[in-house]
Amino acid sequence: MKKPLILVTNDDGMFAPGIKALVEVVRKLGEVIVIAPNTPQSGKGHAITIHEPLRLHKVDVFEGIEAYECSGTPVDCVKLAKSVVLKDRSIDLCVSGINHGSNASINIIYSGTMSAAMEASLEGIDSIGFSLLDFSFEADFEASKSVVKTVVSYILKNGMQKGNLLNVNIPKIPLAAIKGIKICKQAEARWTEEFAEAIDPRGEKYYWLTGKFDNEGDEENTDIWALQNGYVSIVPSSHDLTNYSAIDELKGLEVER
Amino acid sequence: MKKPLILVTNDDGMFAPGIKALVEVVRKLGEVIVIAPNTPQSGKGHAITIHEPLRLHKVDVFEGIEAYECSGTPVDCVKLAKSVVLKDRSIDLCVSGINHGSNASINIIYSGTMSAAMEASLEGIDSIGFSLLDFSFEADFEASKSVVKTVVSYILKNGMQKGNLLNVNIPKIPLAAIKGIKICKQAEARWTEEFAEAIDPRGEKYYWLTGKFDNEGDEENTDIWALQNGYVSIVPSSHDLTNYSAIDELKGLEVER
Repeated sequence: MKKPLILVTNDDGMFAPGIKALVEVVRKLGEVIVIAPNTPQSGKGHAITIHEPLRLHKVDVFEGIEAYECSGTPVDCVKLAKSVVLKDRSIDLCVSGINHGSNASINIIYSGTMSAAMEASLEGIDSIGFSLLDFSFEADFEASKSVVKTVVSYILKNGMQKGNLLNVNIPKIPLAAIKGIKICKQAEARWTEEFAEAIDPRGEKYYWLTGKFDNEGDEENTDIWALQNGYVSIVPSSHDLTNYSAIDELKGLEVER
Repeated sequence: MKKPLILVTNDDGMFAPGIKALVEVVRKLGEVIVIAPNTPQSGKGHAITIHEPLRLHKVDVFEGIEAYECSGTPVDCVKLAKSVVLKDRSIDLCVSGINHGSNASINIIYSGTMSAAMEASLEGIDSIGFSLLDFSFEADFEASKSVVKTVVSYILKNGMQKGNLLNVNIPKIPLAAIKGIKICKQAEARWTEEFAEAIDPRGEKYYWLTGKFDNEGDEENTDIWALQNGYVSIVPSSHDLTNYSAIDELKGLEVER
């Protein structure tokens, strides 16, 4: 049987331990191509590079795996993979991550890791983003690897809805302590921003983003609840942002002339 | 009666004719504060600036209006507005645009203009993004101004669902030719990417994003259909990306141990 073609990307860059763990697992499940940013791209959301050229260089990072570093954003990586590197080939699955840090709740919107996965899903490719709730460079990805193996094997076998993508988050606990997998909805939560204000060496004021994450919606069917209670969370997600429940509210609006 | 406080931003930058047209209309409807990027930020999606400091400078661009230019992305502008510039004040409405070019269909995901509006909605602020289907710097915003006046007046009077935001797109036709307003769902469509490949003056290959937009879903209830048929489209949108229809598909998944 022909091996499935799996595209791997992330937002933490080619040398992050998270992508290494991801490649280690999926190389056993298919033919793997890696295209990842050459600089950290956390918080880049669905940004694309329009006003500048992009660079793509072949690198030898994962033994025996074709890999490229790209000067752009995670979404640029997926676009270049599809249109340039894998031009005439059909990609069976895109996996992004494993992100160092949570992409649960509204973090999906800011995340370069999840935006790369969404870009693949916009192209009709089955797509999964993985994140571990540990920001550290020294994070332990052992439990995450079991989760990746489970979810990727399942999707390669069963496929998914067209245009769907999976947002998989993994709690920072050992494999033995993980209670199971919960299929969830995205929790309502928000960042309470603060900006560190300071004066630079040239006497000019600057602002630097900081902030804390407030969980508002810790209902039992949300990803935040699942993660806080020892479960892996999977939120099936979509690029259709229509708020269907609000369509009727605005009917009857007429342009003033 | 106290005037509503209206935050204005965009992604084309402070000197784009589109934001000028927007300010001209909304200054008659409330107290206006403008915070916009100091460089064009098209295609920046929901990017935020984490790894660098941000600069904010007061500028005198719109007579009698408090305005600031920001070195970051459109989403950064909204965060700085909320947390620094308008720290102790309650913002009644955020309007973003008027974008030079369509943000209909999946363009909402790539658009800095719409991401700024979404950021405000994440903060619980009623929020509207406006876009005219004309990329030109010399675009005619006369019809758009009537649309802005209609929609902003309506929302200031009636409010909207918490967490909702409106994606308003305006066809490139005179006001007299506009047939009316359609409340729509986001059309399924996609970009067919191409990358221009060339060699730079130093002999290195580069890629530059280009592409064309393919309308797949031209059903009558979509924004693309409305715009092609002479209507203004309004898609009520949400930051909840959960694909509720896929939740049941994955139930029963167990971590391999």
